[in-house]
Amino acid sequence: MTRTTLTPNHKPTLDAVAWVEKLAAALSSGTPTQAAQLFEKEGYWRDLVAFTWNIKTLAGRSAISDMIAATMATVAPSNWRVEQDATETDGVVEAWITFDTKEATGRGYLRLRDGLAWTFLTTMTELKNYPEKRNKLRPKGAEHGANKNRQTWLEKRQHEQATLGYSEQPYCLIIGGGQGGIGLGARLRQLEVPTIIIDALPKPGDTWRNRYKSLSLHDPIWYDHMPYIPFPENWPVFTPKDKIGDWLEMYTNVMELNYWGSTRCTQAKYDEDKQEWTVEVDRNGEKLTLHPKQLVLATGMSGIPNIPDIPGMDVFEGEQHHSSKHPGGEAYKGKKCVVLGANNSAHDICCALWENEADVTMIQRSSTHIIKSDSLMELVLGGLYSEEAVENGMTTYKADLTFASIPFEIMPQFHIPAYQAVAEKDAEFYQRLTDAGFLLDFGEDGSGLFMKYLRRGSGYYIDVGASDLVANGEIKLKSGVSIERIKTNSVVLTDGTELEADLIVYATGFGSMNGWAAKIISQEVADKVGKCWGMGSNTAKDPGPWEGELRNMWKPTQQQALWFHGGNLHQSRHYSQYLSLQIKARMEGIETPVYGMEPVHHLS
Amino acid sequence: MTRTTLTPNHKPTLDAVAWVEKLAAALSSGTPTQAAQLFEKEGYWRDLVAFTWNIKTLAGRSAISDMIAATMATVAPSNWRVEQDATETDGVVEAWITFDTKEATGRGYLRLRDGLAWTFLTTMTELKNYPEKRNKLRPKGAEHGANKNRQTWLEKRQHEQATLGYSEQPYCLIIGGGQGGIGLGARLRQLEVPTIIIDALPKPGDTWRNRYKSLSLHDPIWYDHMPYIPFPENWPVFTPKDKIGDWLEMYTNVMELNYWGSTRCTQAKYDEDKQEWTVEVDRNGEKLTLHPKQLVLATGMSGIPNIPDIPGMDVFEGEQHHSSKHPGGEAYKGKKCVVLGANNSAHDICCALWENEADVTMIQRSSTHIIKSDSLMELVLGGLYSEEAVENGMTTYKADLTFASIPFEIMPQFHIPAYQAVAEKDAEFYQRLTDAGFLLDFGEDGSGLFMKYLRRGSGYYIDVGASDLVANGEIKLKSGVSIERIKTNSVVLTDGTELEADLIVYATGFGSMNGWAAKIISQEVADKVGKCWGMGSNTAKDPGPWEGELRNMWKPTQQQALWFHGGNLHQSRHYSQYLSLQIKARMEGIETPVYGMEPVHHLS
Repeated sequence: MTRTTLTPNHKPTLDAVAWVEKLAAALSSGTPTQAAQLFEKEGYWRDLVAFTWNIKTLAGRSAISDMIAATMATVAPSNWRVEQDATETDGVVEAWITFDTKEATGRGYLRLRDGLAWTFLTTMTELKNYPEKRNKLRPKGAEHGANKNRQTWLEKRQHEQATLGYSEQPYCLIIGGGQGGIGLGARLRQLEVPTIIIDALPKPGDTWRNRYKSLSLHDPIWYDHMPYIPFPENWPVFTPKDKIGDWLEMYTNVMELNYWGSTRCTQAKYDEDKQEWTVEVDRNGEKLTLHPKQLVLATGMSGIPNIPDIPGMDVFEGEQHHSSKHPGGEAYKGKKCVVLGANNSAHDICCALWENEADVTMIQRSSTHIIKSDSLMELVLGGLYSEEAVENGMTTYKADLTFASIPFEIMPQFHIPAYQAVAEKDAEFYQRLTDAGFLLDFGEDGSGLFMKYLRRGSGYYIDVGASDLVANGEIKLKSGVSIERIKTNSVVLTDGTELEADLIVYATGFGSMNGWAAKIISQEVADKVGKCWGMGSNTAKDPGPWEGELRNMWKPTQQQALWFHGGNLHQSRHYSQYLSLQIKARMEGIETPVYGMEPVHHLS
Repeated sequence: MTRTTLTPNHKPTLDAVAWVEKLAAALSSGTPTQAAQLFEKEGYWRDLVAFTWNIKTLAGRSAISDMIAATMATVAPSNWRVEQDATETDGVVEAWITFDTKEATGRGYLRLRDGLAWTFLTTMTELKNYPEKRNKLRPKGAEHGANKNRQTWLEKRQHEQATLGYSEQPYCLIIGGGQGGIGLGARLRQLEVPTIIIDALPKPGDTWRNRYKSLSLHDPIWYDHMPYIPFPENWPVFTPKDKIGDWLEMYTNVMELNYWGSTRCTQAKYDEDKQEWTVEVDRNGEKLTLHPKQLVLATGMSGIPNIPDIPGMDVFEGEQHHSSKHPGGEAYKGKKCVVLGANNSAHDICCALWENEADVTMIQRSSTHIIKSDSLMELVLGGLYSEEAVENGMTTYKADLTFASIPFEIMPQFHIPAYQAVAEKDAEFYQRLTDAGFLLDFGEDGSGLFMKYLRRGSGYYIDVGASDLVANGEIKLKSGVSIERIKTNSVVLTDGTELEADLIVYATGFGSMNGWAAKIISQEVADKVGKCWGMGSNTAKDPGPWEGELRNMWKPTQQQALWFHGGNLHQSRHYSQYLSLQIKARMEGIETPVYGMEPVHHLS
């Protein structure tokens, strides 16, 4: 974003400038309580790394005052400015703000009501001494001049590929080469942090290519851009899985990432004395020991597959597998298929089986939130992520920051009205589903898809076609029941119904990401860091107490030098910036006192 | 670009609006001479496809009136509008304009002096009935809904790859898979023109990878973007050859082009009756006959290598090759090397040989234009193609159109002052070169690099380091001479000097592109289309008469359905748009009466 000249006497801008000046004065005079008085009583300060070296939301004046008191001396914020004219809508003044800290530049977003901050977001943009080499700072590329020791770009790249992980150790190792690992790898490359990304599959993008064939991104393109290279203007709205695979492969290549395919991590252990990891990997048959200082698990926000333990599984004579291993519908023409679950994967798999002339029954154990893809785009995402938003001058960066500026605690109140509008618009559709016996919900508080995603990462389906099949009975439905036991060629449901089955798919979700830590490092470390994802909303699968931010994601954990990265393309893009800055700061020996680490409340 | 609201009473805008209204009135009332009166006596109308289905500059009122009279009925222009506020600098009002024709939408750029048009550019932007599927029209990607005959993206793509060129014929065949063929292929893909690109080398990008190892783009990044996917903000200013190779490879892949590597065209012949080509190709050993309706030679604006015929070449016992076959300096440590020529390749090769401890002599036969890369960027390209230009809101598209708005006839007057500034700034540098005996020029009229490039495609070096080696004698120089004869281990120059030689490099340039037509089609067709490139400036290697536009490039030739495409990355990007529209219009059976074909004046 570019700083623009402020319009004189523009009321919202004057309000924003006045607030920012008061904040700057209170902070520089060392009076945290006075600074906190600039917030509403229940006001929020959300910080992404700039003040807290953490991802942290402070709610209420007392929490804000405490944070200021603890961080001010090392952070030393200065140079506060309103970046462009503020806007005012329904009495809420909104303004973009820039500031500096001792080590970094920052950008903020303010919402003012009656002169007091309702929400305030602060984010770190760059480390002052380590700006990214882009735009005016981009590398020159060819070395001009004559040089008898010239190394070409290719020679340097080949040298790096030959030495990193062998005679040179990476500072950071990322386990998992999906969009999360790749996007973070790109940011770390930009920050000149020597990094290796490893993945069990041979090529970047294979994570997508290997899934069932009808899969595509359920989120639209504007939400899905990777850092640095946005999708082009001719890219489809919903990217098919193989096409996103190809994009990730080219991205990894042109961003010059050190990506090791066909590589598995067999064991990782942190050495407290040396302050480094010892990581055993198998690179296509070659055993190597790596010693990164930082370890990132980017193994997907879904952890290890949940497979229920159902009596009789061992005697079943058909095929049974978890949804993540489902190959697609082609092999099941004419077969009797039972899919346990009623969320995204269950719907996609049922639809593909039906398309391949299988006989499909979906077993819905509990209620599901359904939203039609078009309605999601139109009524929920459209303001920030759509072609119209782009035409109105919304950039991906601005959209991400605007989105991030809403603290999770009050996000439901932003989302509930949108989902009420969805319920109204698609009333007839929802009625048909209900008539078919489908158990519907909009989240416990009616806040819909994204809050469910944040709270539990499950419990919904973005409808791209399967719901009609459920509504009209083409996909058979048994709801409010589960599978009680399995026989050689059938399943018996908890209501006593028996269904013949050639295939059982367990679309039963995934465990917490710290399950990967248990598998790769140790159960002890997995328990030390505790549950990942969710924020203590005290709704299903997200037990309290309230923590304010997603557990363990993109921020320091209770295990030194261990990080979790993941989420959808939007989250991977946005939060990878803050995770990369945290890692770079540690590499450069910058002081990074972490404020407000949450204790571990749940182990999984 | 987006239409913005015009500021009321803004003088330059009012002037532009008044002119456009008068033009619209004169055109719609069918009075070509009246329309021509709106131009200065020596005014110019340059048209890219919109009016003439040609690339054509009309100079003076009579030529303009003739063009209007001939084209108005079929073109039927309408809906003329000034797109955003005009600007005024030194008495010249400049304005962006939009208009429609019967078949297309268009955009124009106007320069007014005292109410009359000095220059007027009209360009076709899109065919109304065949808009590109991008932004709001981008494809949806995943097909939502359930469909028992679903074909996935991958299946469709694989089907196309298996059938195109076999059971299905391409509408267009592009011979040559460098940046030119690839960029044009991308535009044709967007326009849904079934196209195959063939190249003799295995992979996209190999054209670059196979060149000498120190090569990089001599033009800076802002000038070099491909259509649709600009280089990212971290891309180097001067792209190393292997890196541009990787970019082209990924580009070809993600743009879903049908690229046949390791494929040679052995013979092509046009069948007038069937209105199609018969093209024999060898695809990695497999012989195929293709029947495209349109054939594009994108074999590089450089034609077939010029190798001089020097007595004694056959007895030389060392190594001798044309610059295009030079492998780089590594193999020549300690060897005595003679490089015949003093343009870009000669300098690059001499420098790389010197870097590898060879003994190098450059033979300069005639004067060369030298410009330091930094000065070129700062004083010549900077206004349109630089990070500063981007910061000032200049987009690649706007820059290309602004650049295109200057007719070639008056381009020297825009360039001469810039090169005078260069001569002044780098006076000391030029003096050192002259002192070393180097023969310098700035073009016959002092118009510098780009005019030389347009007139003859040769005669210059963008200095990235070799000139200092020439000036200080590290690269030995013999100027104003040529090689008279070659002996077993030496060359004898026209001044009688004899130089020992282990290697002779002929950096002696390339023939006209129609040499490719002679090689692939026939000498008869090559002679029918005549010389490519140059515009009849009556300067060295560009004999008159004046034609106003580059010969045969990106526009219809005297051979039906044969097109030439090439040039640097800027030209390939810009002109591929107009070439793709001409081809698409023919595919759709749109009437494309070509106005103002030039007769052939020169055969090569």
